[in-house]
Amino acid sequence: MELEFLGTNAGVPSLQRNVTSMALRMFEERRSFWLFDCGEATQHQILRSSLKLSKLEKIFITHLHGDHIFGLPGLLSSRAYQGGTTKLHVYGPPGIKQYIDVSLTLSQSRIEYELEVVEHTGGTVYEDEDIVVESLLLDHRIDSYGYRIAEKDKPGSLDLQRLAEYGLKPGPAYGRLKRGESIDLGNGTTLHPGEVLGAPKKGRVVTILGDTRPCGNVLKLARDADLLVHEATFMDDLKESAHNYHHSTSVQAAEAAAAAGAKELILTHFSSRYKDMEHLKPLLEEAQSVFPKTLLAEELMLFPVHRHE
Amino acid sequence: MELEFLGTNAGVPSLQRNVTSMALRMFEERRSFWLFDCGEATQHQILRSSLKLSKLEKIFITHLHGDHIFGLPGLLSSRAYQGGTTKLHVYGPPGIKQYIDVSLTLSQSRIEYELEVVEHTGGTVYEDEDIVVESLLLDHRIDSYGYRIAEKDKPGSLDLQRLAEYGLKPGPAYGRLKRGESIDLGNGTTLHPGEVLGAPKKGRVVTILGDTRPCGNVLKLARDADLLVHEATFMDDLKESAHNYHHSTSVQAAEAAAAAGAKELILTHFSSRYKDMEHLKPLLEEAQSVFPKTLLAEELMLFPVHRHE
Repeated sequence: MELEFLGTNAGVPSLQRNVTSMALRMFEERRSFWLFDCGEATQHQILRSSLKLSKLEKIFITHLHGDHIFGLPGLLSSRAYQGGTTKLHVYGPPGIKQYIDVSLTLSQSRIEYELEVVEHTGGTVYEDEDIVVESLLLDHRIDSYGYRIAEKDKPGSLDLQRLAEYGLKPGPAYGRLKRGESIDLGNGTTLHPGEVLGAPKKGRVVTILGDTRPCGNVLKLARDADLLVHEATFMDDLKESAHNYHHSTSVQAAEAAAAAGAKELILTHFSSRYKDMEHLKPLLEEAQSVFPKTLLAEELMLFPVHRHE
Repeated sequence: MELEFLGTNAGVPSLQRNVTSMALRMFEERRSFWLFDCGEATQHQILRSSLKLSKLEKIFITHLHGDHIFGLPGLLSSRAYQGGTTKLHVYGPPGIKQYIDVSLTLSQSRIEYELEVVEHTGGTVYEDEDIVVESLLLDHRIDSYGYRIAEKDKPGSLDLQRLAEYGLKPGPAYGRLKRGESIDLGNGTTLHPGEVLGAPKKGRVVTILGDTRPCGNVLKLARDADLLVHEATFMDDLKESAHNYHHSTSVQAAEAAAAAGAKELILTHFSSRYKDMEHLKPLLEEAQSVFPKTLLAEELMLFPVHRHE
């Protein structure tokens, strides 16, 4: 599981950085990737990455501002062209369905795969046996949501040597033990999973926020997260601008990470006034003075999601 | 007056070429530029050019396929950010207004300049004292229009020496002569403009077509044009594909230029199967064998619009 940043600029694209989108790469875990937000030219950035649109499984939209959604119609249209045949889900705030429908209908775009657009106002947005995605409303000029993507804990590994000592050969019993069921060994003894199972493998938590001022739901979504992605539109000297435009400063992002007990923080969504790395370095240092494990998102950079016990 | 190609690919962007848009630069003539079509990431291409969105005066859309319009909402939103305050007109087929309205309304985009969207189904789309834009329906899978942009002829230059001989000093009389009015010299003689005016300066004609199969309206729009921009999605060996997908081959574009008596032809809108210049060279040569004054459009290249007597 890695995060790849496809765009890290706020509001408008610049020559250095594109508008917002990031890919949660889960090729090891589920042979696919998910997209969070889809600013204009996200499909162009994907051409520059190793990602293939055919492997895109889900898109989560944080809010409907143009710099987060104007790449959707083009990306959805091009996915079929690039061999995408599997069903695709798009999750986002109310309005996202109309935006996609009108764009694809008026342009008579041929989407030859199944496309399901799910509008939500927070809560459990998606769940399967491996993962759960929860969402809460943040504090922005428009309804903006954060997502908490939590892998479910996995049972530990079976101790194969002990199983052999019990005379148990590989088969259905192994699966039952892994699922936490006891096994009748047939000789009057019962084998409990705890005797042959290692410690469960804790699932990782990634929190990806939409644009927001500091607010309580940021802390709920980021609680103990292994990785928090937080907007940092401004440096702290522009705290007032951040407040007026319903954004956060780098220091506010770091404060949220610290307060929520997050393990790592990546800053993104930088105002284009911070032209390049030279201008972003002070923004990073300011955040690191509050929360040392802070990194800066960079275009097309990969960040592994570490597991913290 | 120059044409700048911002995207020359058909259907989807590639690493080499963006989807369709071109700028008709008229900085000498009217201190502004016009855009024809606006595929996704046209605003990104403009960042790479010398164009400023604040100088954009009009946008003409040929048809509503995504590769020709999906860059509109982002470009319109960013124009205000880049200092655009003057009124902007968008002309296009029915549906373009709903597309722009829904995109800008749902995204709560702040367009702080006056934006007027004019839907048309051909005819005289725009006219002022210097220029007239006419449009006709072409033959495509969706209603697609071509535009004929014709400068009006300008009166010739005044012969200043002869005017001095008549004792006429610079003033309102000069303007009246330029407008074709005769002047009473007050001594019983009348000065007719023909005596002091050079030959009128012929206006140039640029024809820019949307996607199309060969059809009669192509010839009407391109009649004696100084410059014709014609799609050439395929080479002539794929004539059947061109027909099935409602497109033209490079040879068909050249045949149209020859039949219409156009003076120069620029090919654009290339299938992404033609990866780079190496693959496009045969496409060009094929067209040149029919119409020698053919050129290939290239990303961010400028083509002057020559005046042919």
